Amino acid sequence: MVATVGPADARIDGEDHGYVHDGLFDGLFGRGAVSVGDRDWLQAMLDTEAALARALETAGLAAAGAGAEVTAVARADQFDVAELGRRAMLTGNPVPALVRALTGLVPAEARQAVHRGATSQDIIDTAAMLLSRRAIDVIAGDLATAANRAAALADEHAATVMAGRTLLQQAVPVTFGLVAAGWLVGIDDARAELSRARARLAVQFGGAAGTLASLGEAGPAVAALLAAELGLPEPVLPWHTDRLRIVQLGAGLAGVCAVLGKVARDVTLLAQTEVAEVTERSGQPGRGGSSAMPHKQNPVASVVILGCTKRAPGLLATLAAAAEQDQQRAAGAWHAEWETLAGLLRLTGSAAAWAADLLTGLQVDGSRMRANLEAARGLPMAENVAAMLAPELGRVEAHDLVSAAAARAAAQAMALTDALLADGNAAATLTAVGIGHAELQAAVNPENYLGASAEFIKRALAAHRRVP
Amino acid sequence: MVATVGPADARIDGEDHGYVHDGLFDGLFGRGAVSVGDRDWLQAMLDTEAALARALETAGLAAAGAGAEVTAVARADQFDVAELGRRAMLTGNPVPALVRALTGLVPAEARQAVHRGATSQDIIDTAAMLLSRRAIDVIAGDLATAANRAAALADEHAATVMAGRTLLQQAVPVTFGLVAAGWLVGIDDARAELSRARARLAVQFGGAAGTLASLGEAGPAVAALLAAELGLPEPVLPWHTDRLRIVQLGAGLAGVCAVLGKVARDVTLLAQTEVAEVTERSGQPGRGGSSAMPHKQNPVASVVILGCTKRAPGLLATLAAAAEQDQQRAAGAWHAEWETLAGLLRLTGSAAAWAADLLTGLQVDGSRMRANLEAARGLPMAENVAAMLAPELGRVEAHDLVSAAAARAAAQAMALTDALLADGNAAATLTAVGIGHAELQAAVNPENYLGASAEFIKRALAAHRRVP
Amino acid sequence: MVATVGPADARIDGEDHGYVHDGLFDGLFGRGAVSVGDRDWLQAMLDTEAALARALETAGLAAAGAGAEVTAVARADQFDVAELGRRAMLTGNPVPALVRALTGLVPAEARQAVHRGATSQDIIDTAAMLLSRRAIDVIAGDLATAANRAAALADEHAATVMAGRTLLQQAVPVTFGLVAAGWLVGIDDARAELSRARARLAVQFGGAAGTLASLGEAGPAVAALLAAELGLPEPVLPWHTDRLRIVQLGAGLAGVCAVLGKVARDVTLLAQTEVAEVTERSGQPGRGGSSAMPHKQNPVASVVILGCTKRAPGLLATLAAAAEQDQQRAAGAWHAEWETLAGLLRLTGSAAAWAADLLTGLQVDGSRMRANLEAARGLPMAENVAAMLAPELGRVEAHDLVSAAAARAAAQAMALTDALLADGNAAATLTAVGIGHAELQAAVNPENYLGASAEFIKRALAAHRRVP
Amino acid sequence: MVATVGPADARIDGEDHGYVHDGLFDGLFGRGAVSVGDRDWLQAMLDTEAALARALETAGLAAAGAGAEVTAVARADQFDVAELGRRAMLTGNPVPALVRALTGLVPAEARQAVHRGATSQDIIDTAAMLLSRRAIDVIAGDLATAANRAAALADEHAATVMAGRTLLQQAVPVTFGLVAAGWLVGIDDARAELSRARARLAVQFGGAAGTLASLGEAGPAVAALLAAELGLPEPVLPWHTDRLRIVQLGAGLAGVCAVLGKVARDVTLLAQTEVAEVTERSGQPGRGGSSAMPHKQNPVASVVILGCTKRAPGLLATLAAAAEQDQQRAAGAWHAEWETLAGLLRLTGSAAAWAADLLTGLQVDGSRMRANLEAARGLPMAENVAAMLAPELGRVEAHDLVSAAAARAAAQAMALTDALLADGNAAATLTAVGIGHAELQAAVNPENYLGASAEFIKRALAAHRRVP
Repeated sequence: MVATVGPADARIDGEDHGYVHDGLFDGLFGRGAVSVGDRDWLQAMLDTEAALARALETAGLAAAGAGAEVTAVARADQFDVAELGRRAMLTGNPVPALVRALTGLVPAEARQAVHRGATSQDIIDTAAMLLSRRAIDVIAGDLATAANRAAALADEHAATVMAGRTLLQQAVPVTFGLVAAGWLVGIDDARAELSRARARLAVQFGGAAGTLASLGEAGPAVAALLAAELGLPEPVLPWHTDRLRIVQLGAGLAGVCAVLGKVARDVTLLAQTEVAEVTERSGQPGRGGSSAMPHKQNPVASVVILGCTKRAPGLLATLAAAAEQDQQRAAGAWHAEWETLAGLLRLTGSAAAWAADLLTGLQVDGSRMRANLEAARGLPMAENVAAMLAPELGRVEAHDLVSAAAARAAAQAMALTDALLADGNAAATLTAVGIGHAELQAAVNPENYLGASAEFIKRALAAHRRVP
Repeated sequence: MVATVGPADARIDGEDHGYVHDGLFDGLFGRGAVSVGDRDWLQAMLDTEAALARALETAGLAAAGAGAEVTAVARADQFDVAELGRRAMLTGNPVPALVRALTGLVPAEARQAVHRGATSQDIIDTAAMLLSRRAIDVIAGDLATAANRAAALADEHAATVMAGRTLLQQAVPVTFGLVAAGWLVGIDDARAELSRARARLAVQFGGAAGTLASLGEAGPAVAALLAAELGLPEPVLPWHTDRLRIVQLGAGLAGVCAVLGKVARDVTLLAQTEVAEVTERSGQPGRGGSSAMPHKQNPVASVVILGCTKRAPGLLATLAAAAEQDQQRAAGAWHAEWETLAGLLRLTGSAAAWAADLLTGLQVDGSRMRANLEAARGLPMAENVAAMLAPELGRVEAHDLVSAAAARAAAQAMALTDALLADGNAAATLTAVGIGHAELQAAVNPENYLGASAEFIKRALAAHRRVP
Repeated sequence: MVATVGPADARIDGEDHGYVHDGLFDGLFGRGAVSVGDRDWLQAMLDTEAALARALETAGLAAAGAGAEVTAVARADQFDVAELGRRAMLTGNPVPALVRALTGLVPAEARQAVHRGATSQDIIDTAAMLLSRRAIDVIAGDLATAANRAAALADEHAATVMAGRTLLQQAVPVTFGLVAAGWLVGIDDARAELSRARARLAVQFGGAAGTLASLGEAGPAVAALLAAELGLPEPVLPWHTDRLRIVQLGAGLAGVCAVLGKVARDVTLLAQTEVAEVTERSGQPGRGGSSAMPHKQNPVASVVILGCTKRAPGLLATLAAAAEQDQQRAAGAWHAEWETLAGLLRLTGSAAAWAADLLTGLQVDGSRMRANLEAARGLPMAENVAAMLAPELGRVEAHDLVSAAAARAAAQAMALTDALLADGNAAATLTAVGIGHAELQAAVNPENYLGASAEFIKRALAAHRRVP
Repeated sequence: MVATVGPADARIDGEDHGYVHDGLFDGLFGRGAVSVGDRDWLQAMLDTEAALARALETAGLAAAGAGAEVTAVARADQFDVAELGRRAMLTGNPVPALVRALTGLVPAEARQAVHRGATSQDIIDTAAMLLSRRAIDVIAGDLATAANRAAALADEHAATVMAGRTLLQQAVPVTFGLVAAGWLVGIDDARAELSRARARLAVQFGGAAGTLASLGEAGPAVAALLAAELGLPEPVLPWHTDRLRIVQLGAGLAGVCAVLGKVARDVTLLAQTEVAEVTERSGQPGRGGSSAMPHKQNPVASVVILGCTKRAPGLLATLAAAAEQDQQRAAGAWHAEWETLAGLLRLTGSAAAWAADLLTGLQVDGSRMRANLEAARGLPMAENVAAMLAPELGRVEAHDLVSAAAARAAAQAMALTDALLADGNAAATLTAVGIGHAELQAAVNPENYLGASAEFIKRALAAHRRVP
């Protein structure tokens, strides 16, 4: 008997929510269509072996038809993953056992086409490139959704005034459109970096020590054919121990996490009970609930995004440290990369899928934004008041005069304007420089102090439209 | 049809090699009996819920028999992991769905005993403690094996002279016993730390915000009963956002990885073709082979250990960074811990299992050690020669004189003694201070320059015997 | 001419604020009395050399009086740091040049006592231990201050009710005393760990390759004397490439940063304009100001603490990765430790100094805490209401009923009690189970739902009193 | 009195060795012309303030001549660094105090031009960009030297045969030219990335919350003028909390460290006493010496490079983690970047300076390379022998046959060819497939098994010539 969750809880349709995995934590950290499990690795290795067989045939180094023969059996479901995993203990990686098993599946005349010229690392590295390419394409799709939603929010809320907050304190007014535009620029830049990392993915094919010696003169030609078969660029040299490519790939993924983490952080802050300027909404009943507290509406998407993105820096550090690789092939540092890279792809993919969801459902409460700003009684406009005084008083002096009034306003819960006028000295100064009540009121009106917000939003949207 | 690897390749019996997992990379990075997969997590959560039900019953807060009712159904195989994973997307963790499913499995009168007083984090954190405790016990066993083998090597090779090497250059002689004693001390210290981390594992039970308010007056009593049920210490306070315990646990595991990585690094260096002083041996035919090169005998265990241990620092950094947790329960940082901790447990467990294997099978070639040392023509004894001259010449002057002779010896491939005697000035100095040919020969005999090696080995063995 | 900041800005007296350094960022990241600059390193190295000379004399390996002669000149101000730095380029560390310079300062008869038996690493590692010990003592003092202040806050605010917040949402009530007690337990645990790390600091003395061969039979005796001279424990073996001690030290420091980062994070959140439950106060006029905004009162101490503590995980990762050290002395990994460890000591010291300041000046606004909680219109008490219904309805059903009412309350900005009573179904259920208006009002009174808060505070204070 | 190192130790002329700093460890970790000390930071901040003043004047927002007035006094030596550092404690950064001091130095009519429109972060971030640009230019120069030397080595040693080594075991032959070509490609790729990171450096100018509100309509125009004054690109938006730029910069620097660490690792391995294929040479007498061992010739440059590069991953992780920044300006995460980025610039600069030195002086011993390869008695040619047999026997069978012979050869210290011929079965197989003695000897001649080595070198050199 398997427990279910009762009639009131309709089964969640994974398909509808981009959820294709089946682990306990995969809905959180492996959401979306990035897939880097054992079957994916195995298939990517087999795709590489099959492409090599076809390349060898084209190069005249394998019998006619051998490429097709190998390709026909190079299907992950033909292999015993657990057995390959056990046999990997003999050689330090699963490729030798895979080669033997694959060889056993093809007719005798095609066997010469299996793995010829290659070393285990050629297969695993190229498989990692294939996995990464597929993952990046998925991530790019989710990021495009997220960016388009951020763009829509930026446009829609170009005039939605709210408190800008620095060091978690109200600073000067901004618009929510500008906030969303900031997210947009971050996401679009991260997409561009990821796209560059994708373009740098390259086939790995160097043989035992990077010379392709076992292919004699034909090595480079086979390498080029293999690259063409897989649609991957050919590198200048085999890169067995030149891991800059992996570091850059890791950095591209960590960059995506960095910008999504920033978005999620902002949403958790804006969604706080006391701030309540945005709310996560999803179409799912029960979303955001707590096991204990019936009233809770937790910002689940943001929280889970942070749960993913906070893991990226440590994984990136591992990849960067692992780049110190020995001689022609490394004793351990290379092995440290495999699951680390796969993990980073998965987490980035999940963060991107959640971010698309988050930005699609984000509810913005413009009136609460305005109310929160007004509750600060003009203090966020102190800079503007000081600026009005600066030409007469000097910048430092104006800053100090308004600063003192702001302190009084804060201490006595009065409006900044009242605090200024209540002080004889300050009032006299205002009068002296010709600032009357109307000017003062205008100076503390947030609408009048948005600076380049609208123009900046336009710039961000224009840049977004230029994204390929 | 599933491919096999052919008749010559007998199926590896996982049991015999401590291999109990079935993933493609689990033989490498998940070897040994540490188990932190979905089923393990789920069972540990259920163990926690069951223990809580029993504690509630004992405290008089649940019906008689409720504890046993819940315990009876709290078996991971009763639950649909994939469905729990999907439903976790609603709440940010799988516990609420698990609670509903578990509640559905128990008779109505026992339902009040399910999850009462708890919050999701209580269940996941306590489950993590249970997983960690089990993992540490496994790791401790493998480390004990490794330490005992290091001790045996230290004892057996107390007089096996070899070159000490600093900055990868031959320095002065040591014994292989001393090298092994160094490994021993590292492993024993790491064991002690791990043991301490184990002792700090503690139950988590605070309810929604760490007050246990839903249990009224009974909270602390239930917490104590829960701790007793699970055999876990009770902390001073619920530690929902006090994550020092996790950082320390991570540090204890990373410490194990640090010392095992050092051992593996040494073995890879000593096993180099040109050094060839040690060899990994295992009972497995085919171990150490390459997919391309028939002659290869790769030091697989050391390489895989490094493939595990090099990932620990990044994971530790993630845990340390995640300790900055918000208020009563964190928005994301906590979530970043789960898989990170589990991953670190798995990798440490695998490194320990491989290390036990490595040190059990390590072959030491004492004659090659001696030969490598002799090939340096007395240069590693230069310090001793200088020390002999120092009382007469002064330390700096003696150092410079021998340094010059050593440079000549290196340049002309001659013995250090010959280089000294061939230089009129140096020879005259030797004569002047009464150092004849016999004294010089004695001075370059490595046996005479082992210092405290033997005593240090004894100390390490004595300390090892004191390990509980 | 040197610019000053004008008459209104009295010069800050560094002494008064525990500020003893003079760099541009030292007030932020190097505050307090931890001192790990060049002079400190140099003096610690000289202290080690001097102690070694005295140990050698005691052991009969140097002329009478040699120890005193070396000690007399082993003063950092006697040496040209820049020149030592330049000469370090020849040998990869500054010790060889230091030894030559020190030798040149002592009378001929004492020269044999300089550096005899030692290798550069002995001097630098032991110096690092001395620096660490001094730093830890300073940090421990600041942490004691911080802990005592947290204890005072816990005691003083044991009945100050506030919203507990999980995932940045109001959850159930807590008291500020409990929050402070949580900080206290974290700090006290971190102190205990740091104290343990201090106890593990050990002298390093192994000579060229860890055998002390150049001292013949006398090595261990000299090592013991050196340890005694410096008041450092003697390790089982020289630990040139057994770096667990450094990893543990790093973990101890990173643990301090972890708990202080949590405190600072909480303060920044509680100090938000919209929350305003705590305020940083310092005796310094101008503290918290902005260069642009006259009204700003930034939580500078918390922000700077986070600026320090966020750097600890990366530094810890570097130390952990650097523990993979080659053979008898490492080719680079050791060098990576020096500035990393020193940096971690400095940052931890600064965070501790700022934390002492922060907790000393923290202003708590109990009425605002109450007001923020009340603004949630009873929602944080939903769990309590559900618990009241659970015996009759079942836990899951009660949760769902209250959850629906909470959703209505949130959507219509009404009190939870009103939302319950406004729904015919819910109201009928309440009536059916005998819950009247008075019971309902009592159920939403936060004072009645603090659970074990008071007891937990008592536990934390009791544990604090037991800290040595 | 200041100690010197005696007459025999000529003072090191820092200028000649690219050494411009004066700290105890700066010769190691701060070598070269990258300069990120307090004065550099201060001057870069002042350069930013001066450029802003000129921009404001050009925009008509400051009096004529104000830009020149501010520029004239914006010299770091006019300011008291220690006092600025102390005052930074009030505001969390040194800019407010700097602005006051700078304002005090300019005539009254120019004061409006100081800091107008800016917030502290504008000044510090832009200063960091200026520091980074200068540092990158220095690093690029040293990398160009290193790359040119690697290219020369690749060309010169295109036919210098040596053992390729994988997992620290001899694998198949390569040439040293190919090894150097691998270094070259890595360095050239890292240069390209660094160049890209340089192109992304951008001015920061957003005012208090990124709206430039205090400049009214003029904000964007002033920002453009400021960018032009500094020669920095203008970003789409102010990037106060969009830190992808910093992550990418960090990744570019860590990428340089990654490739240089790989080079250094290779050199330390090739320079081992037992391998002795390369030697570091420098023009400096005493380079590579030990404080204890007169014979030591340590590979100091490689070791120090590793001492630098091993610190990069942890610093990169800090920057990546710090990218999760709050709202309009962050409470701590931003502060964590300053010294981290500066430290990474310094270490990368030092590694690059050392690498230029290392590759300039590297001595290659081709005959030793050949001798080490021959000492393996044909085993590294086993793959070639197997390949020769594969068409007849099948790849797997050929692999197994040669593998068995290789095992016998290793066990009995005989040549691979002899081991093959000594086995009746193998010998018969050889005969059967028509492989005689001459073919066998040819098959074990490394010259005949270099594959694409020469072509790969040509590719790398061609790519190098295309580097701008």
